[in-house]
Amino acid sequence: MATAGKVITCKAAVAYEPNKPLVIEDVQVAPPQAGEVRINILFTALCHTDAYTWSGKDPEGLFPCILGHEAAGIVESVGEGVTEVQPGDHVIPCYQAECKECKFCKSGKTNLCGKVRMATGAGIMMNDRKSRFSINGKPIYHFMGTSTFSQYTVVHDVSVAKVDPQAPLDKVCLLGCGVPTGLGAVWNTAKVEPGAIVAIFGLGTVGLAVAEGAKSAGASRVIGVDIDSKKFDIAKNFGVTEFVNPKDYDKPIQQVLVDLTDGGVDYSFECIGNVSVMRAALECCHKGWGTSVIIGVAASGQEISTRPFQLVTGRVWKGTAFGGFKSRSQVPWLVDKYMKKEIKIDEYITHNLTLGEINKAFDLMHEGGCLRCVLKMHE
Amino acid sequence: MATAGKVITCKAAVAYEPNKPLVIEDVQVAPPQAGEVRINILFTALCHTDAYTWSGKDPEGLFPCILGHEAAGIVESVGEGVTEVQPGDHVIPCYQAECKECKFCKSGKTNLCGKVRMATGAGIMMNDRKSRFSINGKPIYHFMGTSTFSQYTVVHDVSVAKVDPQAPLDKVCLLGCGVPTGLGAVWNTAKVEPGAIVAIFGLGTVGLAVAEGAKSAGASRVIGVDIDSKKFDIAKNFGVTEFVNPKDYDKPIQQVLVDLTDGGVDYSFECIGNVSVMRAALECCHKGWGTSVIIGVAASGQEISTRPFQLVTGRVWKGTAFGGFKSRSQVPWLVDKYMKKEIKIDEYITHNLTLGEINKAFDLMHEGGCLRCVLKMHE
Ligand SMILES: NC(=O)c1ccc[n+]([C@@H]2O[C@H](COP(=O)([O-])OP(=O)(O)OC[C@H]3O[C@@H](n4cnc5c(N)ncnc54)[C@H](O)[C@@H]3O)[C@@H](O)[C@H]2O)c1
Ligand SMILES: NC(=O)c1ccc[n+]([C@@H]2O[C@H](COP(=O)([O-])OP(=O)(O)OC[C@H]3O[C@@H](n4cnc5c(N)ncnc54)[C@H](O)[C@@H]3O)[C@@H](O)[C@H]2O)c1
Ligand SMILES: [Zn+2]
Ligand SMILES: [Zn+2]
Ligand SMILES: [Zn+2]
Ligand SMILES: [Zn+2]
Repeated sequence: MATAGKVITCKAAVAYEPNKPLVIEDVQVAPPQAGEVRINILFTALCHTDAYTWSGKDPEGLFPCILGHEAAGIVESVGEGVTEVQPGDHVIPCYQAECKECKFCKSGKTNLCGKVRMATGAGIMMNDRKSRFSINGKPIYHFMGTSTFSQYTVVHDVSVAKVDPQAPLDKVCLLGCGVPTGLGAVWNTAKVEPGAIVAIFGLGTVGLAVAEGAKSAGASRVIGVDIDSKKFDIAKNFGVTEFVNPKDYDKPIQQVLVDLTDGGVDYSFECIGNVSVMRAALECCHKGWGTSVIIGVAASGQEISTRPFQLVTGRVWKGTAFGGFKSRSQVPWLVDKYMKKEIKIDEYITHNLTLGEINKAFDLMHEGGCLRCVLKMHE
Repeated sequence: MATAGKVITCKAAVAYEPNKPLVIEDVQVAPPQAGEVRINILFTALCHTDAYTWSGKDPEGLFPCILGHEAAGIVESVGEGVTEVQPGDHVIPCYQAECKECKFCKSGKTNLCGKVRMATGAGIMMNDRKSRFSINGKPIYHFMGTSTFSQYTVVHDVSVAKVDPQAPLDKVCLLGCGVPTGLGAVWNTAKVEPGAIVAIFGLGTVGLAVAEGAKSAGASRVIGVDIDSKKFDIAKNFGVTEFVNPKDYDKPIQQVLVDLTDGGVDYSFECIGNVSVMRAALECCHKGWGTSVIIGVAASGQEISTRPFQLVTGRVWKGTAFGGFKSRSQVPWLVDKYMKKEIKIDEYITHNLTLGEINKAFDLMHEGGCLRCVLKMHE
């Protein structure tokens, strides 16, 4: 590789300040150090977590930074000691690392890995606690250990999943966040069983992936709840069997669902990030066993609450990050499932734009008709 | 039986009004109707739920009533269609019924039974929606479907566990509530595994039974948390290995426990009924897998709260009623375990009084030195 070991100058969308349009800049991307991988990002999608940090509401957000965490690309070069990927490998960067060595990875109980968390949380790389991105010598922070809104990015080797080189990168980029989150919430976190009654609050990409997961798990009823009735038509294709718009009722939505289901649902999923809906999602669960899974990310400082009696009478309150999937081990498996047509991806992609149009892509996210917008990184 | 089919007049402690001393009265106990069992109560203990309703803080409390739900006795007579017990059987009345037929019982997922819940919640019997207790023709409400502060009581047949006639009733009466609740929270609800680190908030009878359950499940550390340091000496005998008094620290108690355990406990149990402690119990759990079980009953209207991030990062919030034990099926099994010396009971009994001394027994409950006080019902 002609570029290996050298600084690469390429285009990236830089977030200089909260809420100000991203700026397409020439950025310098330093070579990967020990345990690092430099990736040529070919496609990236946008997710609400990018919008959340960009909005300035994320108290841990650092600026200037390069956002982005749902992407796919090809390894350009690797640093010392990197054995599991090599230049040319097709990869998906994973904001949720998997080192296979830390207390978390070895527990067998969680997909959260502790290895590089301190560094990624601080917007830097672990090796020298510095950023690999700069513009004319001024460092730009990393984001979620991925920073995929750049044509080239550097990530820790524990944050790279090597995938089937036949897989279309403009599609499987979605396996970096939203789709696995919804599928895994059903399969790994809730473990929905055949015949179960499921309620899904919020029918964006995450909620639709929950519906798809619930259908494949054999749920008997999949009730979609959204304040935007336009979501229902598309939701049917993902397995939603009934639709409830809270605006059509005077009763609290939890009561509507309890009445609809003779006592409550077996599983509910909050896919919005609204703490009142999180409460409703718990309280619409059946006494004795109903389990509610929080997926949505609430604004900083907000709290969930309920009467403890809800739990004493058998409801269970859980949450999930990246659907409980172990990233490096299981993202390649999800890619294979897509290749075998066992899971959908194409259907979530409503828009295709280029890196240069990223601000338009952020605008689209706030429109009901947009699920995922995929950006082509090189023109 | 000379008394079968007749009204029995006997002594009972009647709660006429919230917070007013109970009055020992001659009450008339009507014969059992279809599906009912009249029991000669020999021993009853006092539990905090009795005190809670008696205090007037329970919005569903009905007066005048006969409280009591942790007891043992002998069947005096049975109503039409009762097949599973007969006069002379040694029994434990169960506030948590088990009909084996309703949606709940058949689910295989919960011990909560729906069969007689409406009636017991309303202080009456299901058959004619009336009380079997009266004084000079004025009805006295039932309580929790048990009303064991009476020498004779009438309960639904689905609320009676038949036990080994060799078992000492002055001991096994405790298997009607507190001890199974603690043991079952560990064995059934949390399913604590060998090597786990456990924290217990509140070291009364329920908390000590949690400790006993955790020890038998093979927990490596059992950390007892109580604001009364006198609890530690006795707690050691039940399996608590470390003691923390929140008053000894300036830091929030959840932080104290996270620091003590390199990241948090695997399981925590709230055995007090304090919503702030319920929050601490959740938040001291290890990221990725820690599970917190609410056992304590909070005052009416109070709510639990936390940041949803606590759940999104893998903690699980649950609760338990009667420790998840199916009452009629499993209380006899617990009696057998006691007879084989596999579980403690005697050690929880710190006081023995008579029915006539019941108000003194309620006073004792508020003293740190009292775990359970057992009342002899007939002198
Ligand atoms: N836990 C994780 O690992 C993880 C991963 C990815 C995304 N997320 C979070 O999941 C959430 C959903 O992501 P998405 O991309 O599907 O979002 P989205 O905005 O596309 O979808 C949200 C849906 O909720 C609906 N909605 C809004 N308010 C509602 C209300 N009060 N009642 C009912 N419906 C309502 C909207 O109409 C929309 O259809 C976001 O909070 C995101 O940050 C979490
Ligand atoms: N869920 C169920 O099925 C069920 C069944 C039985 C009892 N309960 C409930 O369980 C709870 C415990 O019952 P018990 O009989 O063991 O009660 P108890 O009063 O004997 O014990 C409570 C203990 O908590 C300690 N405590 C009080 N405030 C504290 C604080 N802030 N921090 C730490 N420790 C504190 C007290 O010193 C005491 O040792 C009660 O709320 C009772 O109603 C629930
Ligand atoms: Zn995302
Ligand atoms: Zn790890
Ligand atoms: Zn009790
Ligand atoms: Zn039942």
